[in-house]
Amino acid sequence: MVRVGVVGGRGYIGGELLRLLVQHPEVEISCVVSRSKAGEYIHRIHPNLKAFLNMRFSDFNLSRIGDNCDIVILAIPHGVGVELPQKFMEIGLKVIDLSANYRLKNPSLYEKYYGFRHPYPDLLKKAVYGLPELHRSEISNAQFVSCPGCIATAGILALTPIVKELEIDNSSFFAHAMIGSTAAGSTPTIYTHHPERVNIVRPYKLTGHRHIAEIEQELTALKPGVKVFLSAYAVDMVRGIMFSCQVPVGNLSDRDVWRIYRRSYGSEPFIILLKDQKSLFKLPDPKIAVGTNFCYLGFENGDDGIVVVSALDNLVKGGAGNAVQCLNLMFGFDEKTGLYYPGLHPV
Amino acid sequence: MVRVGVVGGRGYIGGELLRLLVQHPEVEISCVVSRSKAGEYIHRIHPNLKAFLNMRFSDFNLSRIGDNCDIVILAIPHGVGVELPQKFMEIGLKVIDLSANYRLKNPSLYEKYYGFRHPYPDLLKKAVYGLPELHRSEISNAQFVSCPGCIATAGILALTPIVKELEIDNSSFFAHAMIGSTAAGSTPTIYTHHPERVNIVRPYKLTGHRHIAEIEQELTALKPGVKVFLSAYAVDMVRGIMFSCQVPVGNLSDRDVWRIYRRSYGSEPFIILLKDQKSLFKLPDPKIAVGTNFCYLGFENGDDGIVVVSALDNLVKGGAGNAVQCLNLMFGFDEKTGLYYPGLHPV
Amino acid sequence: MVRVGVVGGRGYIGGELLRLLVQHPEVEISCVVSRSKAGEYIHRIHPNLKAFLNMRFSDFNLSRIGDNCDIVILAIPHGVGVELPQKFMEIGLKVIDLSANYRLKNPSLYEKYYGFRHPYPDLLKKAVYGLPELHRSEISNAQFVSCPGCIATAGILALTPIVKELEIDNSSFFAHAMIGSTAAGSTPTIYTHHPERVNIVRPYKLTGHRHIAEIEQELTALKPGVKVFLSAYAVDMVRGIMFSCQVPVGNLSDRDVWRIYRRSYGSEPFIILLKDQKSLFKLPDPKIAVGTNFCYLGFENGDDGIVVVSALDNLVKGGAGNAVQCLNLMFGFDEKTGLYYPGLHPV
Amino acid sequence: MVRVGVVGGRGYIGGELLRLLVQHPEVEISCVVSRSKAGEYIHRIHPNLKAFLNMRFSDFNLSRIGDNCDIVILAIPHGVGVELPQKFMEIGLKVIDLSANYRLKNPSLYEKYYGFRHPYPDLLKKAVYGLPELHRSEISNAQFVSCPGCIATAGILALTPIVKELEIDNSSFFAHAMIGSTAAGSTPTIYTHHPERVNIVRPYKLTGHRHIAEIEQELTALKPGVKVFLSAYAVDMVRGIMFSCQVPVGNLSDRDVWRIYRRSYGSEPFIILLKDQKSLFKLPDPKIAVGTNFCYLGFENGDDGIVVVSALDNLVKGGAGNAVQCLNLMFGFDEKTGLYYPGLHPV
Repeated sequence: MVRVGVVGGRGYIGGELLRLLVQHPEVEISCVVSRSKAGEYIHRIHPNLKAFLNMRFSDFNLSRIGDNCDIVILAIPHGVGVELPQKFMEIGLKVIDLSANYRLKNPSLYEKYYGFRHPYPDLLKKAVYGLPELHRSEISNAQFVSCPGCIATAGILALTPIVKELEIDNSSFFAHAMIGSTAAGSTPTIYTHHPERVNIVRPYKLTGHRHIAEIEQELTALKPGVKVFLSAYAVDMVRGIMFSCQVPVGNLSDRDVWRIYRRSYGSEPFIILLKDQKSLFKLPDPKIAVGTNFCYLGFENGDDGIVVVSALDNLVKGGAGNAVQCLNLMFGFDEKTGLYYPGLHPV
Repeated sequence: MVRVGVVGGRGYIGGELLRLLVQHPEVEISCVVSRSKAGEYIHRIHPNLKAFLNMRFSDFNLSRIGDNCDIVILAIPHGVGVELPQKFMEIGLKVIDLSANYRLKNPSLYEKYYGFRHPYPDLLKKAVYGLPELHRSEISNAQFVSCPGCIATAGILALTPIVKELEIDNSSFFAHAMIGSTAAGSTPTIYTHHPERVNIVRPYKLTGHRHIAEIEQELTALKPGVKVFLSAYAVDMVRGIMFSCQVPVGNLSDRDVWRIYRRSYGSEPFIILLKDQKSLFKLPDPKIAVGTNFCYLGFENGDDGIVVVSALDNLVKGGAGNAVQCLNLMFGFDEKTGLYYPGLHPV
Repeated sequence: MVRVGVVGGRGYIGGELLRLLVQHPEVEISCVVSRSKAGEYIHRIHPNLKAFLNMRFSDFNLSRIGDNCDIVILAIPHGVGVELPQKFMEIGLKVIDLSANYRLKNPSLYEKYYGFRHPYPDLLKKAVYGLPELHRSEISNAQFVSCPGCIATAGILALTPIVKELEIDNSSFFAHAMIGSTAAGSTPTIYTHHPERVNIVRPYKLTGHRHIAEIEQELTALKPGVKVFLSAYAVDMVRGIMFSCQVPVGNLSDRDVWRIYRRSYGSEPFIILLKDQKSLFKLPDPKIAVGTNFCYLGFENGDDGIVVVSALDNLVKGGAGNAVQCLNLMFGFDEKTGLYYPGLHPV
Repeated sequence: MVRVGVVGGRGYIGGELLRLLVQHPEVEISCVVSRSKAGEYIHRIHPNLKAFLNMRFSDFNLSRIGDNCDIVILAIPHGVGVELPQKFMEIGLKVIDLSANYRLKNPSLYEKYYGFRHPYPDLLKKAVYGLPELHRSEISNAQFVSCPGCIATAGILALTPIVKELEIDNSSFFAHAMIGSTAAGSTPTIYTHHPERVNIVRPYKLTGHRHIAEIEQELTALKPGVKVFLSAYAVDMVRGIMFSCQVPVGNLSDRDVWRIYRRSYGSEPFIILLKDQKSLFKLPDPKIAVGTNFCYLGFENGDDGIVVVSALDNLVKGGAGNAVQCLNLMFGFDEKTGLYYPGLHPV
């Protein structure tokens, strides 16, 4: 049994990690750190775990984590605990970091997008970008994996086959993302207060979204010069991301586009291609991904271009589930272990 | 492997059965009957099963079901297929019926509550009422199990310990139930049309609800003369039932009530007692049960009486999950097989 | 033009008052006090007023309010500003208090239900309970009106005709209330955080709800000994209260019940009796009352009793709208002025 | 009093027309036609009108409408009643058509976008496109006005100032629209069934949306060659449209963009420019427009371009309210009559 420590267990990503880990047949949860909730029963914060995890949050203690864990998963806020991966690696642990702290390889982007000077620029290069569909073998061999942002995951998975295989004039992509309320975390504000947060389509970041940096990083590695315009909206759902991108390239048949996507993802366990006029869900919709590690991909082909869409659960494939998928690779387990089950319909 | 046939696979309960059965390690799905959808891929109707069940709905064929199944689960409308349990038993199958057709032991109640004269009054007595928490050993030995209604499950589980152990003056219970939209099935009407069905608290059955008959049947078996007033409301959620009942009995301490509930349910795998001022969910709420087979029970103790509440997912513990729990008992599997996993939080 | 001051203009009731007052042809808003938001433009907090009220919140200043207002409406938290009504009356203003500070005539109930010793017990008697349907003429002549709680309004209006005209054995009423999120105010907490507050049926006060005191006060004035059991649930809507009460009295025809309700409310401008099998809304539902000052009343007649229901918008008839209705009476305006318009359907 | 007839009074746009007309001080509703509901009380279909309109739907009768009305408003499906405007004009009535039947000036677009050959191509030119902000004086003098589509209204109002005043390289606009469930009408289907329609971000028309034709028609009139990519999504709200468009034009200050919008709309009564970091709504959101005739406009300025957004209620400014605004112009009333009131917050 792999012994797992979770640092930052209080938030929604932390809770989702615990939900997945208590069901995982190859791991045991050794400690769950939350400074603000240390001493409190975990199921009081994550009440879905009441019958499954009779354990308390503990305070942070490096050596105790070192003694009791084989891997530590960090579910901490951006800009906090930037020093932790190095420290845990020094005492022999593997590390998966779910924060943005090590996603970008170019240190200067931290100043532009996150407003801080990165203190460990060398370590940035060593961190493997934890998207199995693009970096499976590196993840398998990695000691340190930095998992993508939720919109970035949706965007990169939707656009990679297009960028890899199509010639597009100016390589500019016009994308929109619609996200659920859990993406904003578990701290209440007036903007997340129920009366204000329901029934909305709130433009919360129309330009300069942080995840643009990740998407451009991964896509320019495939084709230099890719530029992404991304506008993000908060909509009335709890879990989910819908990513959509207009690609003004003509003269493609549906079959051509299908082929492009199948070549990239034909054997991927957590990618589902969905474009079916006879299905209740003709195209991807985050509703169908709720609670699962699947990313649904689809497209529509029009006179003047195609529109590609992807849908996933921001807490699972966009967060905790993707981290467990990486963990499976890092320890040589079947990649689907503990993650492969159908979602709920309807929900 | 137990071979299972599902008759009535198109509806929400049918889909939920399939979701649970594809994950169940001891069963295989042999056929899924839907007259209206015969020939159609199942995942087009239940899109959450796309990667899990590559099978089509079939037409009804008694002998083919007989040849290929060990048990058949009926997820059909009330008043339809009343003859099926007898027919399937005659060819040696076990039967679980999720319709109301065999829930009531007293034939005359079918006329009062369902408006038809029951054609098989003798078979009514043979059908075991499929609530494991009350009839576990009978279910284990049964060939034919008739599963409870969703509100009935919530009501019986909440009130059984009270009726068993407390002396109440006139034995009248004043109950309310609030239910989600899936309880009305998958056929659209103007009343389920999104613009009309959201943001509501719709009194849909204030008196004479059909599930009263089941609740009174099970409770009067414990104490004659029990009378239940039940008003049911449709509220804006997809899955879930909240059942609540005021019991005007005084002079009980919290501890007394705890003890009563623990005596009835202390070792039940799918009952969770929840009353915790320090938890995010201080009392049961259907939100926390979504997608799970758990029934949450709790209470509040006031000056003039106690209020008991129960919460569950109408499609799982109130339907398909409870049926699988019965199946586990009928075939000697661990009762938790394929059913014991945490729900999602938040959802 | 009547000059109105609003003290406590920041909250949802305060905002709703302003929405109604800007449309009221006989009043002008002279000042809007909010200590925490003094100096801020009102439309930044109540963005629906952007084109309608170009004014800032001001700090509290008794003499300035005295100089500029004919009436002051208090929309402040319970237990705060208990001294204000006296002070405003001393300088000649009329007062409408929307807090609970002067609703109960019996001072000892403040200790029981609100946890404080009331400092002005004599003034309690002078405050008129501001429910026009019960106390119209007193309100018309009052200098000081204390408006009811939102659930109390729904409960009293539903039960008054029953209590007045029917003989019920033990005079115990078993009631449930389901309320929307605005009833909890505008301050965010983890319990109102969108991911936690949607899709719920949360039992938030199963026994001992504060509004019981008001309901019993008004009903015992009609018939001594009335006792109310009330359990309150938070459900997933923004505005609205559904109140429902089971009355175990038999042998009444629908026509009898109709007559009872018509006698009490036949000419009331803001009461709508709704019980119509052919209507899209067969019975009251808070959805249809959203944004309006109407209270919808209806009932269902069963074998063992009747169930009466009422539905209203907690911010309007359950708060600001009812206060404006009182204001109209206090200044001799047509009671409907500024309040009589249809709601939205669907919403 | 202007006597108004409504043809197609059963749907949501029809109901919204009636809601606005019963409050309009200068009009009276003479007849409301619905073939399918003829003889039924209107308030059974539009229950918000119960205290306001005690009238029945009538069958269609040209001469009776001619005798009793000064203007007829058509709220009928596309492709139906194409002959009606001509017929009503012949008997001297003014006509406002809310269907798409006369929105497009180029007859060939009806074949492309609506799949029928337009039978009255000459009349297309006579119909005035009913968007007061662009065609006020023509509407004032018109006998026949054809009102825009809901997304078209949002799109044209957002983009007109940009197209009029900015030089954009290839004049391609990449737009997204998110709409509420009422936009799909009042006929229930499995796609609008509550369990399926909540919690969604459903890509329902990613390319080739019909409203593109209207947007391009109005924008190319300002600058030839404008091309619009529009992807439309259904989201979980009842009323509302969010329109958003990325415009890759740099080197503009916020002030520049403000000036452009103010020049177009500075004195428009139903346009609200909203971009305020200190407001609860920093940018437009359909939530704030619910029930009102306002179109909110805003923008965000990034390194590589600006994103413009508009938000409105599809049934009001995107439908019935805009029609009443046109009616006011056609009869010389103040444009705001019956339409100028604040929305609800929160809702």
